[in-house]
Amino acid sequence: MSINAIVLAAGQGTRMKSQRHKVLHPVCGKPMVRHLLDAQKAAGITRRIVVIGSMGEQVQAALQGEVEFVWQKEQLGTGHAVMQAAPLLENQDGITLICSGDTPLITSESITKLLELHREQGAAATVLTGIVDNPFGYGRIIRGEDGSVLRIVEEKDASPDEKSVREINASTYCFDTRSLAQALKMVTNNNAQGEYYLTDCIDILRRQGKKVAAHCVDDADEILNINDRVQLAMVENILRDKIRLHHMQNGVTLVDPSSTYIDIDIQIGADTIIYPGSMLTGSTVIGSGCEIGPHTRIQNSIIGDGSVVMQSVLLDSTFGSGVNIGPFAYVRPGSTVADKVKIGDFVEIKNSTIGEGTKIPHLAYVGDADVGNGTNIGCGTITVNFDGMAKHRTVVGDNSFIGCNTNLVAPVTVGNDTYVAAGSTITDNVPDGALAIARERQVIKEGYTAKLEARLRERGSKKVRG
Amino acid sequence: MSINAIVLAAGQGTRMKSQRHKVLHPVCGKPMVRHLLDAQKAAGITRRIVVIGSMGEQVQAALQGEVEFVWQKEQLGTGHAVMQAAPLLENQDGITLICSGDTPLITSESITKLLELHREQGAAATVLTGIVDNPFGYGRIIRGEDGSVLRIVEEKDASPDEKSVREINASTYCFDTRSLAQALKMVTNNNAQGEYYLTDCIDILRRQGKKVAAHCVDDADEILNINDRVQLAMVENILRDKIRLHHMQNGVTLVDPSSTYIDIDIQIGADTIIYPGSMLTGSTVIGSGCEIGPHTRIQNSIIGDGSVVMQSVLLDSTFGSGVNIGPFAYVRPGSTVADKVKIGDFVEIKNSTIGEGTKIPHLAYVGDADVGNGTNIGCGTITVNFDGMAKHRTVVGDNSFIGCNTNLVAPVTVGNDTYVAAGSTITDNVPDGALAIARERQVIKEGYTAKLEARLRERGSKKVRG
Amino acid sequence: MSINAIVLAAGQGTRMKSQRHKVLHPVCGKPMVRHLLDAQKAAGITRRIVVIGSMGEQVQAALQGEVEFVWQKEQLGTGHAVMQAAPLLENQDGITLICSGDTPLITSESITKLLELHREQGAAATVLTGIVDNPFGYGRIIRGEDGSVLRIVEEKDASPDEKSVREINASTYCFDTRSLAQALKMVTNNNAQGEYYLTDCIDILRRQGKKVAAHCVDDADEILNINDRVQLAMVENILRDKIRLHHMQNGVTLVDPSSTYIDIDIQIGADTIIYPGSMLTGSTVIGSGCEIGPHTRIQNSIIGDGSVVMQSVLLDSTFGSGVNIGPFAYVRPGSTVADKVKIGDFVEIKNSTIGEGTKIPHLAYVGDADVGNGTNIGCGTITVNFDGMAKHRTVVGDNSFIGCNTNLVAPVTVGNDTYVAAGSTITDNVPDGALAIARERQVIKEGYTAKLEARLRERGSKKVRG
Repeated sequence: MSINAIVLAAGQGTRMKSQRHKVLHPVCGKPMVRHLLDAQKAAGITRRIVVIGSMGEQVQAALQGEVEFVWQKEQLGTGHAVMQAAPLLENQDGITLICSGDTPLITSESITKLLELHREQGAAATVLTGIVDNPFGYGRIIRGEDGSVLRIVEEKDASPDEKSVREINASTYCFDTRSLAQALKMVTNNNAQGEYYLTDCIDILRRQGKKVAAHCVDDADEILNINDRVQLAMVENILRDKIRLHHMQNGVTLVDPSSTYIDIDIQIGADTIIYPGSMLTGSTVIGSGCEIGPHTRIQNSIIGDGSVVMQSVLLDSTFGSGVNIGPFAYVRPGSTVADKVKIGDFVEIKNSTIGEGTKIPHLAYVGDADVGNGTNIGCGTITVNFDGMAKHRTVVGDNSFIGCNTNLVAPVTVGNDTYVAAGSTITDNVPDGALAIARERQVIKEGYTAKLEARLRERGSKKVRG
Repeated sequence: MSINAIVLAAGQGTRMKSQRHKVLHPVCGKPMVRHLLDAQKAAGITRRIVVIGSMGEQVQAALQGEVEFVWQKEQLGTGHAVMQAAPLLENQDGITLICSGDTPLITSESITKLLELHREQGAAATVLTGIVDNPFGYGRIIRGEDGSVLRIVEEKDASPDEKSVREINASTYCFDTRSLAQALKMVTNNNAQGEYYLTDCIDILRRQGKKVAAHCVDDADEILNINDRVQLAMVENILRDKIRLHHMQNGVTLVDPSSTYIDIDIQIGADTIIYPGSMLTGSTVIGSGCEIGPHTRIQNSIIGDGSVVMQSVLLDSTFGSGVNIGPFAYVRPGSTVADKVKIGDFVEIKNSTIGEGTKIPHLAYVGDADVGNGTNIGCGTITVNFDGMAKHRTVVGDNSFIGCNTNLVAPVTVGNDTYVAAGSTITDNVPDGALAIARERQVIKEGYTAKLEARLRERGSKKVRG
Repeated sequence: MSINAIVLAAGQGTRMKSQRHKVLHPVCGKPMVRHLLDAQKAAGITRRIVVIGSMGEQVQAALQGEVEFVWQKEQLGTGHAVMQAAPLLENQDGITLICSGDTPLITSESITKLLELHREQGAAATVLTGIVDNPFGYGRIIRGEDGSVLRIVEEKDASPDEKSVREINASTYCFDTRSLAQALKMVTNNNAQGEYYLTDCIDILRRQGKKVAAHCVDDADEILNINDRVQLAMVENILRDKIRLHHMQNGVTLVDPSSTYIDIDIQIGADTIIYPGSMLTGSTVIGSGCEIGPHTRIQNSIIGDGSVVMQSVLLDSTFGSGVNIGPFAYVRPGSTVADKVKIGDFVEIKNSTIGEGTKIPHLAYVGDADVGNGTNIGCGTITVNFDGMAKHRTVVGDNSFIGCNTNLVAPVTVGNDTYVAAGSTITDNVPDGALAIARERQVIKEGYTAKLEARLRERGSKKVRG
């Protein structure tokens, strides 16, 4: 049986006070609306129609190729929004699921249960509901004795008894597609706001004697929708807590779960310890038995087993097992780091490959470089990859020793088993097994300090050193 | 009508266990007592008298020029404290507001409402109150049928019925100034503690048949007072939450509000995203559409629109729009950074101006320097601003290219459109359009590695490299 | 009277999903089981017998020399575990305390009170209990009218009335040692699970007409046991909160207690302020009047009074008073830093001594070095401590000035009152009062930029600089 989903995303969400459409604000690293679309997909729904309007181009650009779009040029209510999609549903059998684009916590399980109940009950419409502590402002679900939905009463129309009902409308529904198409034609805007309400379809179907069912979610957090940044933060935190729980149950130690930020699709191996203030984002995969953090940000990167990454930032790169990184290292995109590499403090790596067991312990920049195995890159080494006009590559072989405060001026190749003397600027290739040196010999001027200080004083310097 | 405020700050707060007077401990970046003084000022009260005693010199030093001071040499109770200010109130009309210096959350709105109610009711005294879940230990407000205050009952004197009252005395009052002056003269220390209590004035005025009113705050958090560091942390967190809410409602995304620390007077533009672990302090102003953090500290600085600041520390500086800073950058006071500048990783800037579009991507120190537009400061570049006795300035022109691991020995001027070769130490000015080079040519010693290793072994080195 | 403790640690804790035995997972910096052992020791119990089984070698290795071990080769229940220790208790007077190795929050005070009540009541057994909101799943304590324990009822055997009892069995007991030894002989595994239950001893003693008492802890958090990483994080947070409270009550300001991580044995002086994201671990001691953080990690280090440490990592080192460290400094193990030293941004110190008042302000590596007093180590200075085969030491005297981007190639000694010119590589000793210089003189090539750019274009570079 064919199932369509209609996702309402025409309103930009003015309370967000944003140049970005509300449904595109990320929640745990993924645009809000994509959480919903992914849940629909996981529930087996492949045809998704997104109703766009204000800032619709942004939504189109973000979801192009994944969904169909219909435009709602004027914002005349939820019923009107669904009407824009009606031509796509005409004369179809099956079910149409209608969701709001700002409800990222609804799970595929809940969608599946909603659809199952809908079918079991032979309902014309089935409403997703939740039970909340404070139902103020929400539509209340008024059920009959058989559990079916008699009506949904808005706050302003509710009697005192009805106001005490804590089961609320989640604004997520499934409809028999033919019934929906017929009912939509009967919805009018004869109301105070002059809008077309989707909930009127429920009343229309009831009046036609059709059954309206309701599936109540176990966890009312699921049906939270986001209208402003306060709710955005709240929903993000709820989802983060679920993600944290998942990883802890899998054998990951989160020293302080509440200050550990893990995006939705991250994988982490057992016995990895994550210290506070760490952020794992994008498509990152962490091996087992690692120590990550504190205060480490890893984005779209793969880290092998038994690695340590402290107070560092790693972006879009791949790391072997047993690597030791930080504190205060910065690995930029496009780097491939082999097993047992050490990347120490105040080291930047960019768009480079680093061979097994190589050490870059401190204060170095390795950019656009290919470094072999077992090589030691001395403190203060800089790959001079930019000549003012273009970037060039540096190659360093295996088992070489690059002295401190050295420049390797690209394009340049330093061979295997080489030594580069500290303080050298290397502009020509270094053959295998050679020493390269490019520095002046030391001169001592005895008794110079007294003279130098006298001269500095003459130059106007007043302070003494120290 | 003249309104005086008396702020009680004679007790140092022994439970703080501090060398600093309690009311000077900061809350969200501002000394505790200044929150109260600012609220009074915002409520239109310009004459503020602070009663000081223990560690009074500290309070004087902090508030000098803003308020008047009276000394309470001995700590003989709240009534005694106010008596010290009485000579300043003698024969005055108007109202006297009395506050405790350790209640930083009381808002100007509450002070305004307290004063309004006081006037409307024609009261001789009006008490600020709050309703709390656990009133144990606080003075309970016993109201008559007309809502006026009959008396304030201390815990030890309260009947079981009175103990169940949850409306408590916030120790903030306004008095008709003449009535207060008269009542103070009648307060005695005939009690177990031998102290003069300000609350006795309430009883005295009631016995004189005068009206005592009470204004109850909506949010009982407002009346919290601070006696130790636990309460300090609690009050700080409450105020931080209010600040967070304010910015989120204004369109700022706080990815994790609870680990984002924003001082009281910070401004942030809409669509700025703040990642966890960030601290914005002092008089900082952040533009719109920025990304700040994670783990970024910005103090007394201005950041233009569309800027990115990651894992960095910025102090007392000004930044244009579209700047890209960090991770791991440190900008020290007195720096002015133009639009579209990049200040990358492991870069320190101090007391410098950096022109538009200039890039300082990594591992550099630019101190006491003026750098033009469109210039590239290579990795490892150091402005040698200190000669051991004094600091000197470095000037670099527009569109210049400073090679890596370069020293610019100040005072020195490098012109426009110049090149400085990597590894050079520049001691003399470089004219426009020139290349400056100051390094030795490279020498290759073939087959040296084997010999060098043999010699190192002789010198006693046992380990092989790698 | 002799008191034995038996600690049950035979189960590895499969829900931890770990290669590490459950009781060895750290809580606030100390293995879980060691918290318990330390509480027993503080309560005066010196003979501790740990029952080990699965992964028992790990537990042995961790606690070797502190406790006795008995092996439980098969996991046949808590009674069976205690039976393994029975031979060690045979024919002894006194008391045997039985604890579970996964309950790190039980305090020595509670153990002392348990033992006191046991003695006062002349009980054969005394159970530690706690009152919890949700007793589901726990053994309920059924007390008689005199307060003694009638029986402990497991969830599955409990009547509705019994299920409503909120006092639960903490699985911590003390027994009269002779009574325990006798009762153990009567415990059978005639039950559904085929296990020997320790709680059967309680029933056996009751049937013998002996008294069973119970001591209920004030704070039910104490009796929490840890079975998975979620509980581990929860228990860690509870203990962290206690530690935070302790320090705040002692006069330490924690700007955000919830993001400040202080291990169990840390000392901190009054008036020290700790900013968010800081971790103090191991045996760290912080003086008074310091500012620590934000985002600072200090491990096994001593920091003198009035010091400032910002955004830095300090490991296993000692610091004097008034030191100023960071942001972004990294001090590695074995360093001794005297009073008033400045260690600035992007500086690594390793296995070195730094004399009083010496400044290492930025971008430097000082490793395996001894630096005197009042010396200035310029930006970019590197101690070249590794020659590719072995590490060597660098010595710098007092009141010396090491220029920027300098290499000090160890082994080398730079005397007192010396100058080293910026950009030098120093390979030979520098006598007191001398200047050492090792760099090429500067050459200017006027009009070179135009030529250079033309040549770079020929070489294929297409982008212009800027």
